[in-house]
Amino acid sequence: MKIGFIGLGNMGAPMARNLLKHGHTVQVFDLNEVAVRALVDAGASACASPKLAATDVELVVTMLPASAHVRTVLTDENGVLAGIAPGVTIVDSSTIDPASAQAFAKLAQAHGNPFVDAPVSGGTGGAAAGTLTFMVGASEAVYAQVKPVLEAMGKNIVHCGETGMGQVAKICNNLLLGITMAGVAEAMSLGTALGIDSKVLAGIINTSTGRCWSSDTYNPYPGIVETAPSARGYTGGFGTDLMLKDLGLAADAARSAKQPIFLGALAQQLYQAMSSSGRGGLDFSAIIKLYERGEHAS
Amino acid sequence: MKIGFIGLGNMGAPMARNLLKHGHTVQVFDLNEVAVRALVDAGASACASPKLAATDVELVVTMLPASAHVRTVLTDENGVLAGIAPGVTIVDSSTIDPASAQAFAKLAQAHGNPFVDAPVSGGTGGAAAGTLTFMVGASEAVYAQVKPVLEAMGKNIVHCGETGMGQVAKICNNLLLGITMAGVAEAMSLGTALGIDSKVLAGIINTSTGRCWSSDTYNPYPGIVETAPSARGYTGGFGTDLMLKDLGLAADAARSAKQPIFLGALAQQLYQAMSSSGRGGLDFSAIIKLYERGEHAS
Amino acid sequence: MKIGFIGLGNMGAPMARNLLKHGHTVQVFDLNEVAVRALVDAGASACASPKLAATDVELVVTMLPASAHVRTVLTDENGVLAGIAPGVTIVDSSTIDPASAQAFAKLAQAHGNPFVDAPVSGGTGGAAAGTLTFMVGASEAVYAQVKPVLEAMGKNIVHCGETGMGQVAKICNNLLLGITMAGVAEAMSLGTALGIDSKVLAGIINTSTGRCWSSDTYNPYPGIVETAPSARGYTGGFGTDLMLKDLGLAADAARSAKQPIFLGALAQQLYQAMSSSGRGGLDFSAIIKLYERGEHAS
Amino acid sequence: MKIGFIGLGNMGAPMARNLLKHGHTVQVFDLNEVAVRALVDAGASACASPKLAATDVELVVTMLPASAHVRTVLTDENGVLAGIAPGVTIVDSSTIDPASAQAFAKLAQAHGNPFVDAPVSGGTGGAAAGTLTFMVGASEAVYAQVKPVLEAMGKNIVHCGETGMGQVAKICNNLLLGITMAGVAEAMSLGTALGIDSKVLAGIINTSTGRCWSSDTYNPYPGIVETAPSARGYTGGFGTDLMLKDLGLAADAARSAKQPIFLGALAQQLYQAMSSSGRGGLDFSAIIKLYERGEHAS
Repeated sequence: MKIGFIGLGNMGAPMARNLLKHGHTVQVFDLNEVAVRALVDAGASACASPKLAATDVELVVTMLPASAHVRTVLTDENGVLAGIAPGVTIVDSSTIDPASAQAFAKLAQAHGNPFVDAPVSGGTGGAAAGTLTFMVGASEAVYAQVKPVLEAMGKNIVHCGETGMGQVAKICNNLLLGITMAGVAEAMSLGTALGIDSKVLAGIINTSTGRCWSSDTYNPYPGIVETAPSARGYTGGFGTDLMLKDLGLAADAARSAKQPIFLGALAQQLYQAMSSSGRGGLDFSAIIKLYERGEHAS
Repeated sequence: MKIGFIGLGNMGAPMARNLLKHGHTVQVFDLNEVAVRALVDAGASACASPKLAATDVELVVTMLPASAHVRTVLTDENGVLAGIAPGVTIVDSSTIDPASAQAFAKLAQAHGNPFVDAPVSGGTGGAAAGTLTFMVGASEAVYAQVKPVLEAMGKNIVHCGETGMGQVAKICNNLLLGITMAGVAEAMSLGTALGIDSKVLAGIINTSTGRCWSSDTYNPYPGIVETAPSARGYTGGFGTDLMLKDLGLAADAARSAKQPIFLGALAQQLYQAMSSSGRGGLDFSAIIKLYERGEHAS
Repeated sequence: MKIGFIGLGNMGAPMARNLLKHGHTVQVFDLNEVAVRALVDAGASACASPKLAATDVELVVTMLPASAHVRTVLTDENGVLAGIAPGVTIVDSSTIDPASAQAFAKLAQAHGNPFVDAPVSGGTGGAAAGTLTFMVGASEAVYAQVKPVLEAMGKNIVHCGETGMGQVAKICNNLLLGITMAGVAEAMSLGTALGIDSKVLAGIINTSTGRCWSSDTYNPYPGIVETAPSARGYTGGFGTDLMLKDLGLAADAARSAKQPIFLGALAQQLYQAMSSSGRGGLDFSAIIKLYERGEHAS
Repeated sequence: MKIGFIGLGNMGAPMARNLLKHGHTVQVFDLNEVAVRALVDAGASACASPKLAATDVELVVTMLPASAHVRTVLTDENGVLAGIAPGVTIVDSSTIDPASAQAFAKLAQAHGNPFVDAPVSGGTGGAAAGTLTFMVGASEAVYAQVKPVLEAMGKNIVHCGETGMGQVAKICNNLLLGITMAGVAEAMSLGTALGIDSKVLAGIINTSTGRCWSSDTYNPYPGIVETAPSARGYTGGFGTDLMLKDLGLAADAARSAKQPIFLGALAQQLYQAMSSSGRGGLDFSAIIKLYERGEHAS
């Protein structure tokens, strides 16, 4: 299939590579010329604008930092909608708020183009390995059409409902993730302060009702899970500032839905405190540092 | 083995029955005569005081509501320590604060008796079926001695460390449980308010990073898990007031350990609000009702 | 002075009337024709668009619900900037986020017009009586120019710094107000539940270190302050949904400033819970109802 | 009047001195001999036990760190109740939980002695100057009897209701104080991060609806109130660990009263975080340091 791909950052670049590896023809655009050149070396062709990248293709994929970038890439005078042929589907894998996704879908639809929200989880590792999870918001028909393409980039392709529901699924999962991680940090910090061995406590939690991914797969207490960022100084993984972005999207969505999120809003402030203290680049499991006892000069 | 058993409530009674079923000789005490008679019908012999129940046995087991009851049962003039022979081990399966458990251990030790804290999880169902989890705080030697007896009442017997560590394990697990359940309630309520199908959302969470026991086994949203209390009007299960008790123990322990528990303290207030509004008898997953939209007369 | 006034809602209408009373010539615009007619009856002239209302005047005042409305009123093809003469100052009394105020100031400046943010406090009562407080963000020179006009509508005109600082002052004050009100609700509810007389407790707080406006002037416990909404079923006053809007602005500003607001974010959720339960129209001091004990049908 | 005074710490010592200054005869007890000697130099006579200090007096005053100390001082074999004559009133100025105060009152009453809870506010400065506020729980008759003696040590003597209500008043006030201080810290930190001048912001808050003692008299932002601890590196004043103790009492009381304290419980964790990081000795207004941005080494 001939695909236009816009957004070659840490996630987008390996995703576009996987499309090439699966035999698709890919034409790319990014403001960063180095990123474009690397993709061209891998077999893609370079385009001078989103408009040109969307011209003469069977599918457009966008992978961008935030809602404002998606809006610009779509609606600019040199944007996707200026170049795309009627009927061609746009897949946006950016993580943005559901309301924006739905608004973009309306814009695209008015232009004759189906719009699919398909945010991912799995991080840069999953993007490189082609094992991402895609959470897809689309009609049944459009979902059936894009699924094979997404399978070139991911392992789990999940249909979450109509447009916007991919974003809803992602932010609700990450809201819960932000809460459980802080919860594990509290439980592990409290338990070890009270004298229990950290491995014993984790072992009990992992086979009991406190069991969760944040404990059994990604435990923030150093020395429990060898493959977790806590075992390597909280480097790599899913950055605190990215968690903060997703909790911000959850807070926005909660406000629009008129739903309270008591624990989510508090967790958001805790990650904010980590970020404000200069630690936003550490993996989000570094939240456990807020529970460490120590000495301040005052 | 000849065992003295004190405390025949909803948990203690089926536990004592299981001791009888496994061929132990059991002599019991409880203030509630009806409870005592039922055990006598099952083969136990009745005692007129904790002292008498502890006399002439190889092991004493206590299962009581709170720390104050354990203290009385142990130290009263007609209490366990007044009747027990030197060297006989006391196993306390009550859920109490670790500091009290350690204080009782000191008292017992001064009297020549090993003291084991062995709180359980698994509820009244697990107590009846003999599938409880025991979290045991004891020296290696004492643990080896009591393990076979506990196996008559439970399926998982976990050695958590020295005295008090059984209680630490239990309250840390339940602290995390109280947090994850409220977190799942938030995520499910937010997602469905935004339009996603509840089963689709639960399915995604359960195979993603938000995965936890509170979602995959005990989801508070009705209709997700058929065996969960949410499927039967939040009846049965683990009562809100019991969760509140355990979060209170966690808060006390956190204070003594000088550890903040940001999310835990907030979750405690949420369960308190459920209890204060007259819903403390519902299963703790009914916390999701705090996130329902509705109409008040004002 | 000849003034264009745009936005004749519950606040804007009485403000425009006070300009007329002080001898200013006022030309008005609002989408609501009834509101326009009432002002015309009071001596204003009606305009068919913001553009026309801004044409041929010495000052423009806008009083609108939210940032999006201000943007439209300013930049539409029939908007203020299309009609206003160079050098004429625009005073925006809407409560919006500081970043938007600063962005609008840039737009206006590029067009040759000083832009002043001047949100108010004092409610509809203060608007009618001309006793509003204006929190003004402007250069010294522009402040000196607009102050006499604002004095026709308010009693306290406070210069808060450069553009945007009027909004910063308002949202920081209201952030604190939202917190102190919930705090007073907690303290009064706890104290009376413990048996102290509500008037005695309020009296002690009001002469001690817990003293605050939310207690001594606007106590949420019924029967303490006769003039407070709590004395009349929480009607009138400052609506919960308005407090929720201001806490939302504070949350947005905190996110942009990378500042945690632990208590503010939690208070926001509490007011959200009030609103979600259908009580967003009650005065914000009705938050005390979240602390009432009661009976639910389940 | 002849008075027995037990507890000569930072608060008790200057209080006892003021009794001497007002012409009372005072016999004292404290475990700290240096403290006793200093009072003897000031005119008191020393006693070898609480029992002896309570013997042959017209009133007993106790000023102790916590409930456990009061219990011991009262009920020990060398305690107050062993020496005091029937009918003599005991005034306890310690800050303890209301339930303990009521339990001690019962004990004393059974012994024929009225028991008054009379916790104070005003700090060591107020104790020295004799300007403390006493919050008194007692019957009308007993209150009338002790009031003249309290006036020798304080300026405001407030009758809060029956026994225990003095403690209720104090912990509810301090609960609110802990919340408002953290609230002011949030509002000042957010505002200044957004660019407003700290004095301008404080000025607006202090004349608006955010007004509170924590802002106008004790502002945590340095440079606003010259006499506040924030102006001298957060030394002196009311220590974080003391605030933490009072919030702990409030949490205990809330639990017993089955009342949620959402903001109070969160504020408690914030002060706990300050204490855990080694800053429990700073004035409680140092809570503002949790909102400072900075750089961590990781």
